[in-house]
Amino acid sequence: MSYQPPSSVPVEIPDGFKPLGTSGSRLLEIERSKASFSPADLEKYIYGDAAIERRNRILPVVENEPAFDKSQIHYMDRGAKYRHGLAKEKRLVQLTRELGWTAEDVRTAEELLDMPAAFGLHNSMFLKTLRAQSTDEQRELFLKPAENYEIIGCYAQTELGHGSNVQGLETTAMYKPESKSFVINTPGMSSMKWWIGGLGRTADHAVVMAQLYTPDGKNGSLVRRGPYPFVVPLRDTKTRELLPGRTIMDIGPKAGYPMTDNGTAIFNNVEIPHVNFLAKFASVDVESGRFSKPPHDKLAYGTMIYIVRIVQQARMILARSATVAIRYCSVRRQFADRDAPVTDDGRKPAETPVVNYQLVQARIFPPLVQAFACHYTGREMMRQYESNESAMAEGDFSLLADLHATSSGLKSLCTLMASNAIEECRRACGGHGYSLSSGLASLWSDYLPQVTWEGDSYMLTQQTGRYLFKTFRTILSDPNAEMSRENLTAHYVRKYIANPEAKAPFKYAGDLSDPQLFIDAFGHRAAYLTATALRKRDIEKRTWNSLLIDIFRCSTAHAQYYLVYNFAQAIMHDQELKAQPALHRIMTTCFELFACYTMDAEASEFLSSRYLSPQQHELLRNRVHALLAELRPQAVPLVDSWNIPDYLLNSALGRKDGDVYPALVRFAQGEPLNQTRFNVDVNDEALEVGKEEGVRAWSKL
Amino acid sequence: MSYQPPSSVPVEIPDGFKPLGTSGSRLLEIERSKASFSPADLEKYIYGDAAIERRNRILPVVENEPAFDKSQIHYMDRGAKYRHGLAKEKRLVQLTRELGWTAEDVRTAEELLDMPAAFGLHNSMFLKTLRAQSTDEQRELFLKPAENYEIIGCYAQTELGHGSNVQGLETTAMYKPESKSFVINTPGMSSMKWWIGGLGRTADHAVVMAQLYTPDGKNGSLVRRGPYPFVVPLRDTKTRELLPGRTIMDIGPKAGYPMTDNGTAIFNNVEIPHVNFLAKFASVDVESGRFSKPPHDKLAYGTMIYIVRIVQQARMILARSATVAIRYCSVRRQFADRDAPVTDDGRKPAETPVVNYQLVQARIFPPLVQAFACHYTGREMMRQYESNESAMAEGDFSLLADLHATSSGLKSLCTLMASNAIEECRRACGGHGYSLSSGLASLWSDYLPQVTWEGDSYMLTQQTGRYLFKTFRTILSDPNAEMSRENLTAHYVRKYIANPEAKAPFKYAGDLSDPQLFIDAFGHRAAYLTATALRKRDIEKRTWNSLLIDIFRCSTAHAQYYLVYNFAQAIMHDQELKAQPALHRIMTTCFELFACYTMDAEASEFLSSRYLSPQQHELLRNRVHALLAELRPQAVPLVDSWNIPDYLLNSALGRKDGDVYPALVRFAQGEPLNQTRFNVDVNDEALEVGKEEGVRAWSKL
Repeated sequence: MSYQPPSSVPVEIPDGFKPLGTSGSRLLEIERSKASFSPADLEKYIYGDAAIERRNRILPVVENEPAFDKSQIHYMDRGAKYRHGLAKEKRLVQLTRELGWTAEDVRTAEELLDMPAAFGLHNSMFLKTLRAQSTDEQRELFLKPAENYEIIGCYAQTELGHGSNVQGLETTAMYKPESKSFVINTPGMSSMKWWIGGLGRTADHAVVMAQLYTPDGKNGSLVRRGPYPFVVPLRDTKTRELLPGRTIMDIGPKAGYPMTDNGTAIFNNVEIPHVNFLAKFASVDVESGRFSKPPHDKLAYGTMIYIVRIVQQARMILARSATVAIRYCSVRRQFADRDAPVTDDGRKPAETPVVNYQLVQARIFPPLVQAFACHYTGREMMRQYESNESAMAEGDFSLLADLHATSSGLKSLCTLMASNAIEECRRACGGHGYSLSSGLASLWSDYLPQVTWEGDSYMLTQQTGRYLFKTFRTILSDPNAEMSRENLTAHYVRKYIANPEAKAPFKYAGDLSDPQLFIDAFGHRAAYLTATALRKRDIEKRTWNSLLIDIFRCSTAHAQYYLVYNFAQAIMHDQELKAQPALHRIMTTCFELFACYTMDAEASEFLSSRYLSPQQHELLRNRVHALLAELRPQAVPLVDSWNIPDYLLNSALGRKDGDVYPALVRFAQGEPLNQTRFNVDVNDEALEVGKEEGVRAWSKL
Repeated sequence: MSYQPPSSVPVEIPDGFKPLGTSGSRLLEIERSKASFSPADLEKYIYGDAAIERRNRILPVVENEPAFDKSQIHYMDRGAKYRHGLAKEKRLVQLTRELGWTAEDVRTAEELLDMPAAFGLHNSMFLKTLRAQSTDEQRELFLKPAENYEIIGCYAQTELGHGSNVQGLETTAMYKPESKSFVINTPGMSSMKWWIGGLGRTADHAVVMAQLYTPDGKNGSLVRRGPYPFVVPLRDTKTRELLPGRTIMDIGPKAGYPMTDNGTAIFNNVEIPHVNFLAKFASVDVESGRFSKPPHDKLAYGTMIYIVRIVQQARMILARSATVAIRYCSVRRQFADRDAPVTDDGRKPAETPVVNYQLVQARIFPPLVQAFACHYTGREMMRQYESNESAMAEGDFSLLADLHATSSGLKSLCTLMASNAIEECRRACGGHGYSLSSGLASLWSDYLPQVTWEGDSYMLTQQTGRYLFKTFRTILSDPNAEMSRENLTAHYVRKYIANPEAKAPFKYAGDLSDPQLFIDAFGHRAAYLTATALRKRDIEKRTWNSLLIDIFRCSTAHAQYYLVYNFAQAIMHDQELKAQPALHRIMTTCFELFACYTMDAEASEFLSSRYLSPQQHELLRNRVHALLAELRPQAVPLVDSWNIPDYLLNSALGRKDGDVYPALVRFAQGEPLNQTRFNVDVNDEALEVGKEEGVRAWSKL
């Protein structure tokens, strides 16, 4: 030991103090040298040139911008985090203007920043609703200033007592023809707008969803017309004082999302002019108050794009979790292999990187291959979303039901899968996974709302179940019923009905290399579960409620079928992939692991339907173990292919350079608590003795 | 609407502003009126009179003590939380002295406080190690001042690069006979003591585990003797300045445990006198430096009590999660039942409490019945721990291996089960589960270390696996090999070997009411998995590493067998239970749900072994659904029986009185962010406009 730490400075670590043994960088170098393919080629295949160019252009801007610094975030309290987020929002608007960023550029920047903050709902639902539901006059009045950030808005739908049930909202908007205004009221505590992003401290305007009452009933009585959107000013945009009749506050700290001021509002006889009713579809006659219905119920599907995006985003969550865990577990060594021989000179064998443990592989490799599965299906859903938009624009609603049902099922499955993966990967990082420096504990906290919002991932599966029941019934009653050519559900249901007693056709491990085998297996299972549940509903006449568990399983099976189907299609037919044998080879391994692992994880359903025999199950399990071992040397090259920047990972453990331990030490050095010397005398109430000399003050923002 | 909120005060909610519809209190009242048994009697049966008396005596003290206030915790930053925790520690020591609390009383207080803080490791491992490993001289020198809180210690074992592998520790302690002292050194960054509770800012002493080197090799060369404990002074107890050669700091924020200052230390030629080597078992001759080995390797099992306690504590985590979720889901209403008829006057049916949804029941009832399962097994493990302690004191080590293996398997299973339950229950609370006011998000964060420490819950299962292999091999080679009468493993292994092709004997749902059926089924499965894995190891000669997944499954199956076994024993033979028919009836339902639910969750293993047929599996699943419905009306009375005080729950959602919404509003009112008016002008760098008038300043501690 060559250095002398100054005795009274608790946090200084001199240069040259290094971990013993092979360094993390060297260990990752060795891993990388084993690549059987070019990670750069795979990266290009995943993202495409345009997205890579965009990221390469935007990343240096955001990672060098002081307002976007992430290094101090975990030491901040909620107030500092909100402020940091607000500063980020302002700077992002300025940069967008300065650099002429497109909407796609901004989205890329937001993904890299990964700091959902004060303007989040302004930029999404507030602007979106104004764009979709404004008349020309309203666009001038609200949309234009909103796009210029002259007003900041939020989208106030959820209430303290009502989340998913929009029809049950209690906030009222009553039209008064005499003053040509709507009067907004919060009738009780359960009706308080709640959870509204940006409402707490940021927004000066809100789109408020309220039950519209119009005075066009019998003898001019009020008639309830259902929930509609109204633009409600909240604060004076200059003084930022609340306008009369509004009671508004932030709802307090959450598990994550600290930079977002989710808020609550009470409206007490708040009058807004007639023009503040967003009237593109429904309308209220300004003089008489007579109500006209919207032409069709398009509203209900207005947020489907968010559901489709949640599926797409799940791949990045999975890839990010796998990146941190796989890199760290390649650097972390613990115990020697139990079967490793003692060396000739009697020394014990060296400790082994924990990624070599089968039980670690079984926890951190599945998220990696699930990321690829979500990649293909996310892309496919986006394609379907766009063709449905085009079709609907021409009055063709035939694709809508299938898209809605499948995206609901996928939203449920992918958010549950991604959230589980974050935590599984965090645990696989052992003790250090628990430090906020791991980047995984905070990712978990911030990702969790995805499981609940845009339709709770458990209850939402009823949407899928309803559609599966309907499709099954249609085909049962008319096997030749016309279905869209793209309707995969009809395809697997027909196949099942033709042969409900089908058995998995594999006998040897080698048989499992046929992608079509898994498409058939997952299709059969989804159809079998639907048939079973439907029998209970239609023949046994069981209540809907008593089938919710069965329906959840049908939906999950349906969504897994989609993941398997789209991944298998790529392996079998993707020309870009087949033209690059090294990529095709490794993606085939990833597909096989995904398919076998998923089938094993859900084995009870395959066994219960007798589609799979116990022998086949044993074969499948052994194949999973073999595939984990096969993937092992490619694990680091595979996560490198996702090329998630260190700036986004924000993880001491997942760093690309493998220098894990110095990063953990720097994280400790930044802890503000280290500046204070504490008084532990149990007989003395004073908690501090003084400041630690020589410890840098943490630079507050 | 009768009230007029003052227009410029954002957070004031006048009295009388209430949720619409039936109140939460009334809804819980209705639930409670449906009880089929006396919750007070069940509480008495669970805890016993002594524990209830103790809690009733201690609860009023802690919940009325200002230093133990929990209401502001979620608004505090890390520094404030550490200080709050330190103040709590001091006050707890004072109260213990003032009120003459016993160790049991203090443990009850700590459980209610639920604020692991600065003195946590002083009170546990520091004192424990001193007690267990000190000579009389050392007890006088270290233990006595430690017990009087004149010195505050911690237990420094884990290093930055070494967690579980104690033999691999790198910190060195070299004995120098010339100065009669040990020299402690941290040879590299990976050797830094890390994660040490209380080391960061609190402790002035540490028990440091270091590799002992003694100068008694050939020609006086140093010989490595393995890791031993040394008492190392860290800070001047008066000035609290670090002593020379120590570099010490807090390691920064974690997912939870904010009040604990987990720390790191570098030792640079720190000399400590000979007496600081804790020498009850091993010893180093003060003059010659000659080393004498400890008589037996008792050290390795020194922390088994913590493992046994983790199993016991899991029941409270499960009961607490279930309490919050079941009460809240009985108050929260969302959507009307799909099959509910429209009323005669054409009104839509009222919204239904979400606890009525089968898919909600399937997520929040299992933790409740798992709590009971852990109750019986935790009690049984504590009994076995105590009889093993007595036996070992008399030189009988025959119970140790079984106890160690089973408690390792149970530690793994119960921590995974409890952590999953917290999150499952949080999600079942919908959006409000995500607020820190739910009490579940913070419980999750604070509970997680249990999955990793005292042996990672995944890797630890190797301990159980090794024992299961050994037992199986012994019985295979000699079916009459003598085993302890209490050895359940031998029991189920023998039964399996006698009839490996056994089948589950049930045909009707009614057959599932026999507890013995489940003991047999879980025993058969555990033995089947062990037999399968052992065949791979002993006949196919597979590597240990390639069996880790199989071993994890064996361990889990073994632990689940224990849970089922002990619960079943109580249902069949517990006289206290059988004497109270109402309690026996409800506990039988809980047992059946636990056993059927667990069997269904693990169905693939029962199906793969052909123990269960697909028809039986379908019967089992339907039985689970029926049992959820059967438990439904008793859910609130059952969680009431656990009688977890509101002070411990610290949850707006789980309150005993059901007044959920006002509690959520009060939580929002406390948010410090609400005191500030922010500047959202994107062209202005200033982030604030001023203070909100009329908003109470949050009273900082």
